[in-house]
Amino acid sequence: MRMENDRALDCAGAARLLGEWDQILLLCHASPDGDTLGSATALCRGLRALGKTVNIDCADPIPEKFRYLFEGLPQEEREPRYIVTVDVADVKLLGAAWKKWGERADLAIDHHGTREVFTPLRWVEPDSAATAEMIFLLLEELGAPVDPATAGCVYTGIATDTGCFRYRNVTPRTHRIAARTLELGAAAGEINRRMFESKSRAQVEAERRVMEGMEFLCGGKAAMIQVPWKILEETGTTESDLEGLAALPRQIQGVVVGITLKERENGTVKASVRADPPANAAALCAKFGGGGHQGAAGCSFDKETIEQAAQAMGKACREYLESLGLL
Amino acid sequence: MRMENDRALDCAGAARLLGEWDQILLLCHASPDGDTLGSATALCRGLRALGKTVNIDCADPIPEKFRYLFEGLPQEEREPRYIVTVDVADVKLLGAAWKKWGERADLAIDHHGTREVFTPLRWVEPDSAATAEMIFLLLEELGAPVDPATAGCVYTGIATDTGCFRYRNVTPRTHRIAARTLELGAAAGEINRRMFESKSRAQVEAERRVMEGMEFLCGGKAAMIQVPWKILEETGTTESDLEGLAALPRQIQGVVVGITLKERENGTVKASVRADPPANAAALCAKFGGGGHQGAAGCSFDKETIEQAAQAMGKACREYLESLGLL
Repeated sequence: MRMENDRALDCAGAARLLGEWDQILLLCHASPDGDTLGSATALCRGLRALGKTVNIDCADPIPEKFRYLFEGLPQEEREPRYIVTVDVADVKLLGAAWKKWGERADLAIDHHGTREVFTPLRWVEPDSAATAEMIFLLLEELGAPVDPATAGCVYTGIATDTGCFRYRNVTPRTHRIAARTLELGAAAGEINRRMFESKSRAQVEAERRVMEGMEFLCGGKAAMIQVPWKILEETGTTESDLEGLAALPRQIQGVVVGITLKERENGTVKASVRADPPANAAALCAKFGGGGHQGAAGCSFDKETIEQAAQAMGKACREYLESLGLL
Repeated sequence: MRMENDRALDCAGAARLLGEWDQILLLCHASPDGDTLGSATALCRGLRALGKTVNIDCADPIPEKFRYLFEGLPQEEREPRYIVTVDVADVKLLGAAWKKWGERADLAIDHHGTREVFTPLRWVEPDSAATAEMIFLLLEELGAPVDPATAGCVYTGIATDTGCFRYRNVTPRTHRIAARTLELGAAAGEINRRMFESKSRAQVEAERRVMEGMEFLCGGKAAMIQVPWKILEETGTTESDLEGLAALPRQIQGVVVGITLKERENGTVKASVRADPPANAAALCAKFGGGGHQGAAGCSFDKETIEQAAQAMGKACREYLESLGLL
């Protein structure tokens, strides 16, 4: 999509623009995760510290576990002059926020390598493990003060998008920026606890039920778990509570593709795929119009039941692994 | 225990000694973990690269998942001139290696704050998240080359002792040394996969059974799981396979003390305690002659059955939490 002033920027370029802009709205993707929220709140804090008027919007409510990111950061609905999307790879991922703000988004800051172009200006760094890494460098470039809360927001984005420094997207820079956030006062221990070690009994029960039903496919090279809506209902868990489930199937020895199918309340099905090289999660999800990264990607099934989605994913996965010569 | 030439060293001091010494034996603690093995193998590789004769001994066999640390690092039994213990806090933890080498250990390199003095020379850094951090700095100080395999050994020690950068022992330096190891070629993604994401189906089954029996104590502030030997027998798992279990009880919301009781083949019981501030795992384990760190510690029950150990730990935990004013 070509527009006037269509430009790919670097960090310095993004900083030059944001340094001049005011009355900014930062948009997070729907079903917000730690990176979109951590990045937006860090940028909001930094830009406000420079005296600018900045607010954040997201189509979905902020999950309980992420609310600390907004502590001392009141938000108000006001007409923005500039709109910046943070960690958004595709307009569909903005959900209702896309309709609300029309096609007015000016700048996209994102680390997804596979993405749509939907803004005239963009700063995209596919080698960044998280958009939050980019935001930290941006704040430095802007000369914005980074207080402990801001450092915590950056740390949150990085830690969540790397599975606490576990995934293959981690680079030396990832660790160095993490080190800086700790020095700047990020409450890393507390954040890690909240993000990675804070399951409710309900979640433990939901996980137990889901894992009991795990299926192995493709001679053990793939594993799939299904999370029908009724499990959430019966255990009293939310979608956000069960985010961690998607990581589990791939953790079994021999499994290179882990698939998690989650039924939403409206009956549609969200598939999360985690893959180890040589398998590529984004390539598998692309068959269903989805995308993401090599190690983690997703796609949606809007018309199928969870069982039908399971059949379709299983078949596509088999074909995919065969094409890689793994079966 | 005072001995002639009794001295606490720093990194430079330890490097000066090791720079002069040759025909060195490095001792790991029994029930070896990633830090003692990663540290010893990294030091062995670095010192051999400087032309020295170095070997490693451990009372127990090297668990399968750690064997890569020894790739291309053949070991031979030979009479050493100097003996260095690596990551060992107490002679009891050396197991049979203590009897074998007598009281000849010359130097202890360790990061445990609570430890016995059993060598005339020691370099101890309680703020180090892992002994492996210290080894990296030591190799730098020695001017020893650090190849990808060596970097991987260091990375292994750091990653395992921090729960992949998750625990509260992580410092900015931890992340920076990790960054250096990645730059030097450590296969971090592969190591993480092997350490943290490689469960056999047998392990998944064992975990499922153990978690089903989890008990909550002290009004939900403590959680305990028991692993009777028969679970290992029936699922075909090993003690090393189930190392990850100890982290699970504390992950439940509200729990500040997580206790894991594992019955060994000989009937004795090993307790692993994980705690969040203000609870201190080492303080609780000290009541039974054990020790460790604030966040993670252990103790042993040599005469009690697993049920009796559970009773004793539960009672001690209650008294401990009461003393902290948490109940």
